[in-house]
Amino acid sequence: MTARTLVKHLAARADGAVTVSGWVETVRDQKKVQFVILRDESGAVQLVNPATRELADDAGPKASAALALTEAISGLSHGSFLTVTGELKHDERVKLGGIEIKIATLEVVSAAPAEPPIAADSSLDKRLDWRYLDLRQPKHNLIFRIQTTLEHAWRTWWVDNGFIEIHTPKLMSSPSESRAELFQLDYFELGTAYLAQSPQHFKQMAQAAGFGKIFEISPVFRADPSFTSRHATEFISVDAEISWIDSHEDVMAMQEQLLAAGFEAVVEKHGDEIREQFGIELAVPALPFPRIPLHEARDIVKARGYEIPRTDGDLDPEGERQIAAHVKETYGHDFVFVTDYPTGIRPFYHMVDPETGLTKSYDLIYNGTEITTGAQREHRVEVLEEQARAKGLDPEGLEHYLDFFRYGIPPHGGFGMGLARVLMLMLGEASIREVTFLFRGPTRLAP
Amino acid sequence: MTARTLVKHLAARADGAVTVSGWVETVRDQKKVQFVILRDESGAVQLVNPATRELADDAGPKASAALALTEAISGLSHGSFLTVTGELKHDERVKLGGIEIKIATLEVVSAAPAEPPIAADSSLDKRLDWRYLDLRQPKHNLIFRIQTTLEHAWRTWWVDNGFIEIHTPKLMSSPSESRAELFQLDYFELGTAYLAQSPQHFKQMAQAAGFGKIFEISPVFRADPSFTSRHATEFISVDAEISWIDSHEDVMAMQEQLLAAGFEAVVEKHGDEIREQFGIELAVPALPFPRIPLHEARDIVKARGYEIPRTDGDLDPEGERQIAAHVKETYGHDFVFVTDYPTGIRPFYHMVDPETGLTKSYDLIYNGTEITTGAQREHRVEVLEEQARAKGLDPEGLEHYLDFFRYGIPPHGGFGMGLARVLMLMLGEASIREVTFLFRGPTRLAP
Repeated sequence: MTARTLVKHLAARADGAVTVSGWVETVRDQKKVQFVILRDESGAVQLVNPATRELADDAGPKASAALALTEAISGLSHGSFLTVTGELKHDERVKLGGIEIKIATLEVVSAAPAEPPIAADSSLDKRLDWRYLDLRQPKHNLIFRIQTTLEHAWRTWWVDNGFIEIHTPKLMSSPSESRAELFQLDYFELGTAYLAQSPQHFKQMAQAAGFGKIFEISPVFRADPSFTSRHATEFISVDAEISWIDSHEDVMAMQEQLLAAGFEAVVEKHGDEIREQFGIELAVPALPFPRIPLHEARDIVKARGYEIPRTDGDLDPEGERQIAAHVKETYGHDFVFVTDYPTGIRPFYHMVDPETGLTKSYDLIYNGTEITTGAQREHRVEVLEEQARAKGLDPEGLEHYLDFFRYGIPPHGGFGMGLARVLMLMLGEASIREVTFLFRGPTRLAP
Repeated sequence: MTARTLVKHLAARADGAVTVSGWVETVRDQKKVQFVILRDESGAVQLVNPATRELADDAGPKASAALALTEAISGLSHGSFLTVTGELKHDERVKLGGIEIKIATLEVVSAAPAEPPIAADSSLDKRLDWRYLDLRQPKHNLIFRIQTTLEHAWRTWWVDNGFIEIHTPKLMSSPSESRAELFQLDYFELGTAYLAQSPQHFKQMAQAAGFGKIFEISPVFRADPSFTSRHATEFISVDAEISWIDSHEDVMAMQEQLLAAGFEAVVEKHGDEIREQFGIELAVPALPFPRIPLHEARDIVKARGYEIPRTDGDLDPEGERQIAAHVKETYGHDFVFVTDYPTGIRPFYHMVDPETGLTKSYDLIYNGTEITTGAQREHRVEVLEEQARAKGLDPEGLEHYLDFFRYGIPPHGGFGMGLARVLMLMLGEASIREVTFLFRGPTRLAP
């Protein structure tokens, strides 16, 4: 490896010789002195060079080298990658971290053109065209370090609690959720394959296989033509499924512990940076999260003066914001489980509570937007067939799925959660496009 | 949750009342006493019931209940899921763990048909048709617990070493590797989308974005019509990419440390089970792994009496086995890096060593089979274009890729590794189909 010191480690080093590598963020080319802000994945540092603007007639090779260095710095373009050796000096007058490096040698490893194609204030769409430059912004880099910490904390929580990680196939012979919004492709002699819209089928199959508790973080695909800030044609789904539950309450209890573990790790590792870059004081959510049955949630929203226009009984996005505002005002909580949805607005495989006639299911709303649907699944195959028929579905077309239930399966349930939605809402961003490494939508397939 | 005790925790419990849940593995329905082996995700336990075969004329409700229980046990089919309460008793005469549970109540939660459709000795293809039953075998379940431990150890090593986890898109506007073996699909107004054959493009893009060190474990797709034991149309690729390297040696050093960390965790957590189920004494590989340049490897293989039929200079599968056997005999090592491949058998984006004219690349062979290709990438765009042309590729068609290099990018390299191959070779299995949750091949798209 290049014998470089990461910028974040410089402050702890004694004054003296040092090598750093990174890219040029800014150049201030003053007459007498030149400053370069060099950034790497860990931070930014000021490089300094006393300018040599012309040579005396009797100038020796040292002066010539000084002139060449000055000219090299004058010619630096933003975004060029450099390796620089020099003298590290602690100096509290330097605003950027109280250190600077006096340049001895400078090597341009990869030069960028003089004019960068985007600026920090370019439109979102233009920034996404140049995502690999857009991601150099420290705020955007931070998003993916937070994502790393969040996912690792979740996986650690699952592993510590005896879950098995599975990788479900994304190529399927039949749709996993609905026949709408399906991507399909030619598949050898077998005809058509479909891209998985969720790992739903296979998570349940793992329960029939006796895996007990499983998780997966993986891409799913929806041929969804919508252009909202919350939808994508490919996104990362965070999924878990557990056996031997009594109700969806067991799933909610698992999910809220998982979320709290993730937030705890993020607050501990990135709390200061999040405050600095996003102006947000992130806190670990208290357990348990508030729970409100849907019919109560609708009453609360109505009492707040908002009339939900949709007639199917579900909340709409404004309804979600209203119930979240109520929960924030009443309980000071950013999360709320809305529970007990009627069968009409839930898929056929959600279990129905015989006492209420409502499904044993929930949505989780975070800062006003839905991030999860969870449920106890119906595991009794004859009830499942009945519920499919009640939805106008032909059990024949569901044979691939129903087969999992014919050879014994324990009671089970789980949830699916959109990773980008969690990050968007955690960091107060306006769109999942900002927190997705490379967004995919109906009009975006590159870079 | 059901108030059950996991079977693996029973041995540490005192004698007394207990609840267990799981599925029926076997029933021994003897005249005087009935035995049921109940398995859950953690192990198997013997349940026992003194049989009540008939009622005396003056039998009370207690005797009737005993008869009903006996008949229920007689009617149990393999694979049915049960919840059983009873009295736990430690008894060293019981072969299975020195414990048994005397049944008090038994609830059939989900009944399986009388005849299971497969047995442990069914053909692989038939077992895969019924994968959700096949995975109930403790040996098969163990594979996925090992996978969980291995991946978590890898991710922990990466996170501890400052890597960022990225999720690269699987939908692309242009092929990621070659135009061969591509799955394609209709994508809105944009025409055709391709499924990613590897995250190669996007891993490198993260280097241009200044991410420094990244990893990803994700599905990739190859429309590969071959039926070998090592190929699939969808598989999990383990990928990493790092910046500021001096050569492929830095990538190898990273990968061998990563592998050792993974093996260490697997040996510690599952070493005993692996010995029991697979008859393998798994050891942590010593560092550094042996390194052999390809031309030396070919000489060694030839000296062992094997003439490689292919004429392009690469090893073939038997050549890989031969060099692995040599390394095992000479160094006692299961891994070997074969390095310095000629440009003719490497993609255009591998960096060429100007001194040797060979690529700064390697394959990693484990127990005789290739599991990885790694390399330093060429980051100088003009050299990259030159190398593309030398391969007969039109740089115009590569613009999406080449653009990443035009705005500054540090020297970098990385590797891709097939997860299933590692598991197959670690556990001495004959095919990746055995170690893949749900295998996908040219003739298999379900379940």
